[in-house]
Amino acid sequence: MNKGEIRLFCPATIANISCGFDVLGCSLSGVGDEMVLRKTEKPGIVITKITGQDLPRETKNNVAGVAGLALLEASTYSGGFEIEIHKNIKAGSGIGSSAASAAGAVWGMNTLLGHPFNEHQLVSFAMQGEKLASGVAHADNVAPAIFGGFTLVRSTDPLDIIRIHTPPDLYASVIHPQIEIKTADSRKILKTSISLADGIKQWGNLGGLVAGLYSEDYDLIGRSLVDHIIEPIRAILIPGFEDVKMAAMAAGALGCGISGSGPSIFAFSKGLQTAKEVTTAMSGVYKKMMLAHDPYVSEINKKGIEKMS
Amino acid sequence: MNKGEIRLFCPATIANISCGFDVLGCSLSGVGDEMVLRKTEKPGIVITKITGQDLPRETKNNVAGVAGLALLEASTYSGGFEIEIHKNIKAGSGIGSSAASAAGAVWGMNTLLGHPFNEHQLVSFAMQGEKLASGVAHADNVAPAIFGGFTLVRSTDPLDIIRIHTPPDLYASVIHPQIEIKTADSRKILKTSISLADGIKQWGNLGGLVAGLYSEDYDLIGRSLVDHIIEPIRAILIPGFEDVKMAAMAAGALGCGISGSGPSIFAFSKGLQTAKEVTTAMSGVYKKMMLAHDPYVSEINKKGIEKMS
Repeated sequence: MNKGEIRLFCPATIANISCGFDVLGCSLSGVGDEMVLRKTEKPGIVITKITGQDLPRETKNNVAGVAGLALLEASTYSGGFEIEIHKNIKAGSGIGSSAASAAGAVWGMNTLLGHPFNEHQLVSFAMQGEKLASGVAHADNVAPAIFGGFTLVRSTDPLDIIRIHTPPDLYASVIHPQIEIKTADSRKILKTSISLADGIKQWGNLGGLVAGLYSEDYDLIGRSLVDHIIEPIRAILIPGFEDVKMAAMAAGALGCGISGSGPSIFAFSKGLQTAKEVTTAMSGVYKKMMLAHDPYVSEINKKGIEKMS
Repeated sequence: MNKGEIRLFCPATIANISCGFDVLGCSLSGVGDEMVLRKTEKPGIVITKITGQDLPRETKNNVAGVAGLALLEASTYSGGFEIEIHKNIKAGSGIGSSAASAAGAVWGMNTLLGHPFNEHQLVSFAMQGEKLASGVAHADNVAPAIFGGFTLVRSTDPLDIIRIHTPPDLYASVIHPQIEIKTADSRKILKTSISLADGIKQWGNLGGLVAGLYSEDYDLIGRSLVDHIIEPIRAILIPGFEDVKMAAMAAGALGCGISGSGPSIFAFSKGLQTAKEVTTAMSGVYKKMMLAHDPYVSEINKKGIEKMS
């Protein structure tokens, strides 16, 4: 591979972690896309190849293309890029498929250009890809993809992303049932107002979750993985959600919730062995329901997007 | 002082720390009450003396008395206690006057009885005193008084209080303007519902604040000390609030907000010297307005209530 070319691992991500709706996400290592980027003399961005998913290749209709164009516009670089995308993360899965492509594009371009932009800038470019994908320029998935580990999007205007300490023994299980929920639809069913009482519970739990991550208090992490606001509404869109959650908890998970806007369901566990058992238990529910699904077990990926050798 | 007697320092506390409405509080050392407790053979609780404030001495009408009775009811101890209360914290100040008395009573009794109860139990007893004072059995002030430092009340049912790391260079300024706001009135003006968008901002900031406390990132603490929900409503009840806040920020405070349900205003600063300058600046606004007020500067009190020698 020459100096003007880079091959990347672009991780799947969990956003909207229970009480952390719209603010807290994390990066995975057990599932992700590969991308290859090449510098070209010709300006602009060309998506040369997409494998694994049927996605638009026109630059302006592709999340990687749009994110890349946002970077190019802010750059003094006069050339362009070719991008290959090899998707393993299914579109509409709720584990950051569009974010992996958008974040991967700008991370790779930034690396090939000698790092002219910082991580916050990369997130803001990648958010343009998210806007194309879901209508909302959110940072929930692109932030953990680019920063790695757990990230808190404290504010989007101005953009303020905080890297949260990741406890070493925390593992994720993810189950992706093969049904489609569009992020835009999943947003529509939310109410625009909530009770103050529910709000207080939510920020109490979010405070507990952040404290649990820093202090590596796995029980506290578990007690705090509660969502009084979004999950009760969105769970209706996911067949068998309550049964899958009960199976995860019975198998020893610290907590369980909806990944992103669904339909994927995530659980956190202490230790890889427990996480494997939790994944098996969650998968077992969908096997009984004869519902096709993809199960994943993953450590929390502290690096985020990285160069593949 | 004999073995059956104890003298205590019972600190003032800041509750409702900006984005941490109803969940986040901290303990101060610059202002607090003194209490003396004595074991008696006679069962029950007698308030033998109150100095500094005109408060009811009948056990069932006194917050220390009611909190103490809650402890006695859960105890196998057949005797009783005499309690002296020397108030320095003014009632209705918004820095936990009732909490200091309620928490001090149960902390002192527990110490004289050889620690039969843990801190969570003490908080639940002291909450009965808060119920007498404000109609709501809240833990916002009794939790930091008993645990010390910063505390997060993640949940009140079941009670779950988390001790949050306190950065070493964090200091508080408190200004108590001599006007009275009753906690009950101050609750009444709040709306029972909030927008989801404001809720997201609030838990984003609370997450940032907890992360800032753990990582000792003073800038992050400052950026996160924002309250989109309660402060805009309650500030109306406090004369000159915006000017005092602007003066605090101009003098170098990290952030500034309403302490408890007011009227006290708190600011946090990095370093004692800045905190002193911030206090002077805040005080200056009320001096110009000819409004009588008490200014305090304090480190964050990591111990909470403690035995005086």
